[in-house]
Amino acid sequence: MSFGRVAIAGLGLIGGSIAKALRERGLDLALYGIDHASVLSEARGLLDAGAVPGSDEALELLSQADLIVLAAPSRTILESLPSILDAAGPDAAVTDTASVKLSLHQRALAHPRGSRFVPGHPMAGREIGGFEASRADLFERKSWFLVESSADVAAVERVRGFVEALGAVPCAVSAEEHDFAMGLVSHLPHLVASALVELAAQADVLDYAGPGFKDTTRIAGGPDAIWADIFAQNRANLVASIDALVRRLDGIKVALASGEREGVEAALALLAMARRAKASSGSDG
Amino acid sequence: MSFGRVAIAGLGLIGGSIAKALRERGLDLALYGIDHASVLSEARGLLDAGAVPGSDEALELLSQADLIVLAAPSRTILESLPSILDAAGPDAAVTDTASVKLSLHQRALAHPRGSRFVPGHPMAGREIGGFEASRADLFERKSWFLVESSADVAAVERVRGFVEALGAVPCAVSAEEHDFAMGLVSHLPHLVASALVELAAQADVLDYAGPGFKDTTRIAGGPDAIWADIFAQNRANLVASIDALVRRLDGIKVALASGEREGVEAALALLAMARRAKASSGSDG
Repeated sequence: MSFGRVAIAGLGLIGGSIAKALRERGLDLALYGIDHASVLSEARGLLDAGAVPGSDEALELLSQADLIVLAAPSRTILESLPSILDAAGPDAAVTDTASVKLSLHQRALAHPRGSRFVPGHPMAGREIGGFEASRADLFERKSWFLVESSADVAAVERVRGFVEALGAVPCAVSAEEHDFAMGLVSHLPHLVASALVELAAQADVLDYAGPGFKDTTRIAGGPDAIWADIFAQNRANLVASIDALVRRLDGIKVALASGEREGVEAALALLAMARRAKASSGSDG
Repeated sequence: MSFGRVAIAGLGLIGGSIAKALRERGLDLALYGIDHASVLSEARGLLDAGAVPGSDEALELLSQADLIVLAAPSRTILESLPSILDAAGPDAAVTDTASVKLSLHQRALAHPRGSRFVPGHPMAGREIGGFEASRADLFERKSWFLVESSADVAAVERVRGFVEALGAVPCAVSAEEHDFAMGLVSHLPHLVASALVELAAQADVLDYAGPGFKDTTRIAGGPDAIWADIFAQNRANLVASIDALVRRLDGIKVALASGEREGVEAALALLAMARRAKASSGSDG
């Protein structure tokens, strides 16, 4: 299978890992990179051509590409999508890797060539970012969500082939369901992990933390460049998720504070439900 | 260094791992185990003698021991401590491995031989329990908290030597500070991780979970036998910890829900504080 000309806009952790994975698998393709000059020079060995964002050369590379992958920060992707679709050739497929999908999907729907765009989101990452942190195996067997419903069949086929070529598993979702789910399984846990670290730090008890705390809070912190966009773009889902968690914990707190046996039972019931859910989802190991 | 006769009451994950670690290091000692007959038969190869709890044989082994290690569930330890101290020889040192220390410490202070007791808590565990899950390297380089302030110097010395012999790092703490800290770095995270799994399961979005969610919720669930005791014995600290987290998350929620830029800034500030705290505590890797 030939991938033709693939242009990757943004060669950080995700875009860089895509470039490395495509090269490592020895696929028949020409690889174009769009990023600042310093990153292009780091990635030189992987690329057939490179250009800096907004340059005439970048527009030329985009216009020639059969597949365009937007791997910049979410806000950059959201803001640049219309001009990318304008620049893309009539038969090109366009996809992205941002963590929030609905705002982007709506913007694509409003564009005359929006059906060439297949919004995507790989469930892979590291605590460190940038091209130097990228690795060819980052997507191996990881889920890669795709919003396929309003895209051309040919565009979907090309993007699916690309995701599979990276070793990832394409999973079709709706943008609404994706953003709702991410609020609960990614954005809320991130915020909560950060709050747990902050509370422990303020109480000066971080030295007491064992391996369990370190696992629970591994994802705490994270780069502003990514999270500012997530908080802004998935605000409604995140607010609802925080609210659900706060109500749940507050219920346990009141029950425990009563000092009655029922308080302990309520807390144990929560653990038992979590145990069952983990067991039935197979995420216990 | 000779450890003489070491009696371990409770040969589950922790007690079993202690027995295996002592044997693997080839220390000069006699090892006595107290547990139900089925566990004793599993642990037979490690023990010089064994007895079931409450039997005359068990009292005899306890009376002969130079070091008694209580590794049963917290409530069993709390309830049996006075009779264990009664049974112990006048020069024996006694320690334990329970996750909550203040209630136990207070009970020891009320006993005429309470100064022979050095409350302890190893910061090590696994998601699975029982003798079959125990392993000789469980305590390698892990912190092992000891409440030394009201114990005899000789008892402290013997217990410290025992902890070091297991490969762990003894850390002197007060019972109050220990239980306060555990509320924040262990008991609260456990409850929160369980609540995150439960919310995601109820919303039917567990299939969307990536590696970050799995790390954050690895400790969710956990055996009732341990957690019922923790919820009951560390209730006040846990209630205060939940309250602090709920207030923090609620503040972020209100800020985000306002829709103003300040909401995103507030959430980012939380992440930044977590980042700094992790970096300065060296827990970022």
